[in-house]
Amino acid sequence: MTKKQTLTVAMIGQGFMGRAHSNAFHQVGHFFDLPYEIGLKVICGRNPDKLAAMASQWQWEEVSTDWQKVVSRPDVDIVDVAVPNVLHAPIAIAAAQAGKIVLCEKPLATSLADAQRMAQAAHSVPNLVWFNYRRVPAIAFIKRLIAEGKLGQIFHYRANYMNQSGNSSGKSTAWRYQKDEAGSGALGDLLSHVIDLSIYLNGPISQLNAMTNTFVPGRDVDDAVSTLVRFSNGSVGTFEASRYGVGCRNRNTFEIQGSKGRLSFNLEDMNHIEFYDATLPGNLQGNSKILVTGPDHPYEENFWKPGHGIGYEHTFIATLGDFLTSLSRKEAFHPNFEDGLLVQKVLDAVEKSAQSRSWISLS
Amino acid sequence: MTKKQTLTVAMIGQGFMGRAHSNAFHQVGHFFDLPYEIGLKVICGRNPDKLAAMASQWQWEEVSTDWQKVVSRPDVDIVDVAVPNVLHAPIAIAAAQAGKIVLCEKPLATSLADAQRMAQAAHSVPNLVWFNYRRVPAIAFIKRLIAEGKLGQIFHYRANYMNQSGNSSGKSTAWRYQKDEAGSGALGDLLSHVIDLSIYLNGPISQLNAMTNTFVPGRDVDDAVSTLVRFSNGSVGTFEASRYGVGCRNRNTFEIQGSKGRLSFNLEDMNHIEFYDATLPGNLQGNSKILVTGPDHPYEENFWKPGHGIGYEHTFIATLGDFLTSLSRKEAFHPNFEDGLLVQKVLDAVEKSAQSRSWISLS
Amino acid sequence: MTKKQTLTVAMIGQGFMGRAHSNAFHQVGHFFDLPYEIGLKVICGRNPDKLAAMASQWQWEEVSTDWQKVVSRPDVDIVDVAVPNVLHAPIAIAAAQAGKIVLCEKPLATSLADAQRMAQAAHSVPNLVWFNYRRVPAIAFIKRLIAEGKLGQIFHYRANYMNQSGNSSGKSTAWRYQKDEAGSGALGDLLSHVIDLSIYLNGPISQLNAMTNTFVPGRDVDDAVSTLVRFSNGSVGTFEASRYGVGCRNRNTFEIQGSKGRLSFNLEDMNHIEFYDATLPGNLQGNSKILVTGPDHPYEENFWKPGHGIGYEHTFIATLGDFLTSLSRKEAFHPNFEDGLLVQKVLDAVEKSAQSRSWISLS
Amino acid sequence: MTKKQTLTVAMIGQGFMGRAHSNAFHQVGHFFDLPYEIGLKVICGRNPDKLAAMASQWQWEEVSTDWQKVVSRPDVDIVDVAVPNVLHAPIAIAAAQAGKIVLCEKPLATSLADAQRMAQAAHSVPNLVWFNYRRVPAIAFIKRLIAEGKLGQIFHYRANYMNQSGNSSGKSTAWRYQKDEAGSGALGDLLSHVIDLSIYLNGPISQLNAMTNTFVPGRDVDDAVSTLVRFSNGSVGTFEASRYGVGCRNRNTFEIQGSKGRLSFNLEDMNHIEFYDATLPGNLQGNSKILVTGPDHPYEENFWKPGHGIGYEHTFIATLGDFLTSLSRKEAFHPNFEDGLLVQKVLDAVEKSAQSRSWISLS
Repeated sequence: MTKKQTLTVAMIGQGFMGRAHSNAFHQVGHFFDLPYEIGLKVICGRNPDKLAAMASQWQWEEVSTDWQKVVSRPDVDIVDVAVPNVLHAPIAIAAAQAGKIVLCEKPLATSLADAQRMAQAAHSVPNLVWFNYRRVPAIAFIKRLIAEGKLGQIFHYRANYMNQSGNSSGKSTAWRYQKDEAGSGALGDLLSHVIDLSIYLNGPISQLNAMTNTFVPGRDVDDAVSTLVRFSNGSVGTFEASRYGVGCRNRNTFEIQGSKGRLSFNLEDMNHIEFYDATLPGNLQGNSKILVTGPDHPYEENFWKPGHGIGYEHTFIATLGDFLTSLSRKEAFHPNFEDGLLVQKVLDAVEKSAQSRSWISLS
Repeated sequence: MTKKQTLTVAMIGQGFMGRAHSNAFHQVGHFFDLPYEIGLKVICGRNPDKLAAMASQWQWEEVSTDWQKVVSRPDVDIVDVAVPNVLHAPIAIAAAQAGKIVLCEKPLATSLADAQRMAQAAHSVPNLVWFNYRRVPAIAFIKRLIAEGKLGQIFHYRANYMNQSGNSSGKSTAWRYQKDEAGSGALGDLLSHVIDLSIYLNGPISQLNAMTNTFVPGRDVDDAVSTLVRFSNGSVGTFEASRYGVGCRNRNTFEIQGSKGRLSFNLEDMNHIEFYDATLPGNLQGNSKILVTGPDHPYEENFWKPGHGIGYEHTFIATLGDFLTSLSRKEAFHPNFEDGLLVQKVLDAVEKSAQSRSWISLS
Repeated sequence: MTKKQTLTVAMIGQGFMGRAHSNAFHQVGHFFDLPYEIGLKVICGRNPDKLAAMASQWQWEEVSTDWQKVVSRPDVDIVDVAVPNVLHAPIAIAAAQAGKIVLCEKPLATSLADAQRMAQAAHSVPNLVWFNYRRVPAIAFIKRLIAEGKLGQIFHYRANYMNQSGNSSGKSTAWRYQKDEAGSGALGDLLSHVIDLSIYLNGPISQLNAMTNTFVPGRDVDDAVSTLVRFSNGSVGTFEASRYGVGCRNRNTFEIQGSKGRLSFNLEDMNHIEFYDATLPGNLQGNSKILVTGPDHPYEENFWKPGHGIGYEHTFIATLGDFLTSLSRKEAFHPNFEDGLLVQKVLDAVEKSAQSRSWISLS
Repeated sequence: MTKKQTLTVAMIGQGFMGRAHSNAFHQVGHFFDLPYEIGLKVICGRNPDKLAAMASQWQWEEVSTDWQKVVSRPDVDIVDVAVPNVLHAPIAIAAAQAGKIVLCEKPLATSLADAQRMAQAAHSVPNLVWFNYRRVPAIAFIKRLIAEGKLGQIFHYRANYMNQSGNSSGKSTAWRYQKDEAGSGALGDLLSHVIDLSIYLNGPISQLNAMTNTFVPGRDVDDAVSTLVRFSNGSVGTFEASRYGVGCRNRNTFEIQGSKGRLSFNLEDMNHIEFYDATLPGNLQGNSKILVTGPDHPYEENFWKPGHGIGYEHTFIATLGDFLTSLSRKEAFHPNFEDGLLVQKVLDAVEKSAQSRSWISLS
C-alpha cells in the first residue's frame, strides 16, 4: 500500500454544522477509497470553553479564536467555513487568497455582491459549497433517473422546505433569526436548498415571482417565502420555505412531473423516493416507494448494504468523498462557489420580486 | 327496449346488513346492465317498529314478522337471509326447499353439519353467500394479477382482520358476542372473510394450527384467533382475526409474496393496492400504490371513472350484479353455498385445532 | 307516518355529472331523513339515443331535447343544471325566472358578468352550486376542527388539484378542452374547487398573483395554473391546478398549518385526514392518519358505520341531503350562487393576474 | 480534562458485521461522553488479503489470523466476536476465560447447550450480545411508552422480519445459508431479532407453536419460520421470519395492540413509529406517524437534532455507548449473554415445535 498524502483541515465554526463537518472529516476515509488522509489540524471559534470541549470530542489537534491567522497558516491545506452567513465572505476570500482549498457552508453569502467576490476569489483554488442534499443517495438517484429520460418532458417542479422552528418564542435570539448575522430567514436557510436542488435537477430558472412573510412582529428576517417559477426548459414550478411549517421537523420535499412519470422525495424519509412510471400499462401505474439503499443505487458501494439506511450525516460524508475524489483526479466538482453564486442570484431575485411585487427575469 | 323480467325479493333481517342489502337491490340496476328489474317485495324481522321505519326508508312494499310464511310466498323469487348466524340454516333451507333463489350472509352457518345441510338443500336453486369482499375492485384486480402470473410461485400469504369493537364494555350484549346467536366470535365474523379470500386468491388449505383467545372473563365466544396455515400450492400462511385489534376500525388486510412480486390490500383504504414487481431492475423495485378505479380495472365500467373511489356498499352491489348476470346467462356463480361450506370446513378445523392444540389436516 | 311532499326534478345534462346527480336524487332519501320524496320527472339533453338509455337506466320518467320548455314546466319543482359551463347562465337564469329551485354545476359561469347575473336571478329562489367536496365527511370534519380552534392562528394554506388527463392526445376534443364551451381549462374545472374549499376553510382571499400555462400548442385553454395567495386572516397560500399532474388521477389535496397544528387531505384517499396536534408534548407530535367514518364524524349517522368507507357519489348525496334539509327548515344553504359568485371573482382575478403579470386585490 | 482510560479491542471477524463494529468503535466517542478511549488494536480473520485492506480502511493497528492467540493477549481488553455463528461459542468462551470483556454477535450460539456454556463462562466478565435493534431510538422510545402505560393491557404482539435474499439463486453459497456454519437459516438470522425485541418489549414467552419451511430443494436450513406465541402477560402473538419475503429489503416490523393504544415500527423506515392513542376522543383517534429524532426522544442528545435522521450504523454506536457507560458506572447492561440465552431457549423451542408439530412450553 502506497503512503497516502495528508490534507490538513482548519475548520472555522463550532456549532451544529461544525459537528457535522467534523464527523465527515473523520468518516470520509472509512467509506470512500481515497489517496488522502485527513488531518484535523485546528478548529477555530469565538467561545473558548465550548471550543475546547468540541476539539476534545472530535479530536481536533489545536484550537484558535483568531480565524485571520488560521486561514493563512502554512500547515493548513483546507479551510472549512461553518460560521454565521455574514462571515462567509471575509473568511472564504481570505482563505482563497492564501491559496487554500476552501469549503463553505450555504448559502454562499448574504448578498449577491459578496457571492460574486467569493466566486471570483475562489477561482484559483479547489472549492465547494455545502449543498449537501445533492448527495442524499435518493436525490442522486432521482438525478440519474431524470438524466436517463425517465420523466420525459418536464411539466411541473413543486418543492417546499418546512420546519416549525419559528412557532415557539424561545428560539428567536439565535443567529439564524437575526438579519445582521444571517442576512435573511427562511430564504437563505431553507429556500437556498430548494433552489440548488431545483437547478441541479431541472436546470436554470428563467423567471420568478415571490412573496415573503414575517409572522412575528418586529422580526427583521422573513419567516416564510413562496415563489412562482418558470424554468428554461418550459416547465413551471412553485417553491416554498417556512419556519412556520407546523407538522414538519425537516421536510425538504419536492415532486417533479413529466410526460413519462413523476418523482418525489421528502427529507424526513430520506432513504426512499416515490416513482410513478406513466409508461406502464394504465392499470399498473402507481406511486412506487423505492428504498434507495441498493442494489444499483448511488453510494451503495460506500455505505452499508441493501435495506440498511443511512442518516443525515452521510450527506456530508458523501459530499466530501466526491470532492476529494474529484480533487485527486483533477476533475471539476459541483456544487462549487459558482453554483453557490447561481443560487445567490435566485435568492437575490426572490428578494427583489417580493419587494417590488413583480416578476423578475434571470438572464 | 325489451321489457325486463321482474325478480321480487323477500329480505329476512332488518339490521346493518339488511340496510346494505336493501341498498344493493335498489342500486344494482343503476350500475349493471341487467335483464331484470328488482322488486323489493317484503322485509321480515322481529321488531315491528323498526321494521316499519326500515321499510319506509328503503321502499319495501310490505313488512312481515313471520319468515316461515314469507319464504314460501309464490310472489317471491329471491329470499335474502341477513339475520343472526344461528338462523341462517333454517331460513335458507326452507327457502331453498320452496324453490327460491337463496342469498345468505356469511358465515354460512354456525356448525359444519348445518352448512352441509344448507349446501345440499341449495343444490337445486341459484344461490349466493355474501362474501362481498371478493368484489372489492382492488381485490378482484389482485385476483386477476395472480391469475396472470404476476406473483410467480407463491411463498407467503399473510392476512388479518382487525377491529377494536371488543375493547369497550358497552357492545358486549349485541348478538355478535353471544354464542347461541353467533356461533362464534371473531372466528365466524371476521376470520371467515380471511379464509374465503385466501381460498379465492391462493387456493385450498391443506393443514392448519390455531389458537383462540377470549380477553373478557365470562364471554362465551372467541375475541381473537390466530392460525398457522399450509396451502396446497406449497405456500405458508398466517391468519389472524381480532375484536381487540386496537387502532383498527375495519382492517381486513393481506399480503401475498411470490417469486415475482408482492401484493397487498387493506380494507380501510379499499380503493388502493400495493404491488411490488420483483421482475423490474433491482434499483426500480418498490411497493407501488395503485389506485384501482380504472383504467382497465374490474368494475370500472360499472361505477364512476378513474380517480373516483367507491365505498363499502359497492361491494354488495357488485356481488349482486355479478350474481344476476350469471343467473341470466345460466352460468355458475361464486361464492355460492359450496364455497361457504369450504369456509365452514376451515372454521371447523380452526375450532378443533384450538381445542386439541394440534395440527388439523383438511383433505 | 305523514305523507311526504314530492319535489319533481328536471335535469338538464346527460353526461358524467348527470349520472352522479341522478344517483343522488335516487339515494338521498335512503340516507337522509327528509320530508320530501324526489320525483325524477324529466331529463333533458342534446343526444336523443344516449338520452333514452340514460333515462332508462336511471328511471327518469320523461326525456326532452328542449331545455327552454322544460325549465318552465309547471310540474317541475327543481331544475338541475349539469351541462357544459357556457350553458349554465342561460339555463339557470331561465329556471330561476320561472321560479324553480335551481341547482347548478360548478364553476357557476364562464365569466364574472354571467355569474353576477345568475346570482341576481337566483336571489328569489332556493339555489345551490355543486361544490360537492365541501360534503366529503373528512373535509366537513376539518371544517369543524378549524372552527373549534384546533389549528390556532393559520399561517399556511397549500392546495393543488391534479390529474393527468391532459397528458394523452386523445382527450383534447372533449368540451372541457374547448374555450367556447368550458370557458377555461384547469382553471374552471379544477382550481374552482380549490378556491371554494379555501374560502370555506380559511376565509376570504385578499390578494393573488397567478400564472397559467398551456403545454399543448394550439390549445385555447389553460392546462395548468399556479397562484400565490394572501388571505384576509393574515395567512399565505399557494394554489395549483393541472391536467398535466402526472401520477395523479384525482388528487385534490390541501394542507393547512397553524400555530396549534396541521391538517391535510387528499381526495384520492377521501376517507382519511391527517392531523398533527402541535399542542401535544413534543415527543408525541406526529401526523395522525384518521379514518373519518365515525364515531362522531360528519355524516356518520347517514351512511354506514365506523370503518366502512364511502365513495365519490356520496358527496353529491350529502350535498343534496343538506340542501333539502335546509329547504324544509327554511334555513340558508351553502354553497349557493352567491358562493359560486365569490369563487368566480377569484377565478376572474386569476385570469387578470396571469394576463397582466401583476398582483390583483380582491376587495 | 482528566485523562481517559484506554480500552483496547480485538475484533474477530472481517465481514459485514466487522465493518459495522469497526465503525462503532471509531464513532462511539464522538456521540457519547465516556471516560474511555477506544484503541483498535487487532483485527483477526481467515482471509489475509481482505484483512489487510480492512485493517487499513478502518485503522486497526494489527492483523492476525489466529484468534486463539489474540483472545488471550494481555494488551487486549475487549474481544468482539463477529464471525459465523458456529464459532461464537469457542471464541467467546476462550475470551471470557481469559478475563476479557466479551462482545458477541447474535444469535448467541447455534445450540442451546453452547449458549448455556457461553452464558456461564461470561458470568465473570462484562459482556454484551449485539441485539442492536433495541437501540434504534424509535424502538427505545416504544419501550418507554409501554413502560409509561401508554398501551394499557397488551392483547396482541405481531412481528415479522423479512427480506428477499433467498429469492435469487446466487446467494446460496454464503455461510448464512449453510447449516454447519450458521446453525439455522431465517431462524437464527432474523427470528432471533424478533424474539429479542418481543421479550424486551412484551416480557417472557410462555408457550409457542411453530412451523418452518424450506423453499429450495436440498437446502439444509430453514428459509422461513412462523410461530404462534403466548406471552406470560396474557397477550398472544405471531412471529414470522423469511428470506422469501419478496418486496422487503430489511423489514423488521412489529405492532403491539393494547387496551389503550397501538404502536408499530418498521426497520425500513427506522426513524419513525406509528402510535394510535385509543384514549383520545373517538373522532381524533388515528395512527400517528412520529419522527423519533427529538425533542425528548432517546439518543437525541447523542446524535443530531430534531428532524435529522440516523441510519443503520447508529444502532451499533448506541449499543456500544450504553455498554461502556454501564461499564464505567458498574451497572448491569442488557442485552447480555443471559439475554442471548433467553432468546436461544426460544429458538430451541421453535425448532422442537416445528419438528414435533406440537406446542412447547417455556417454563
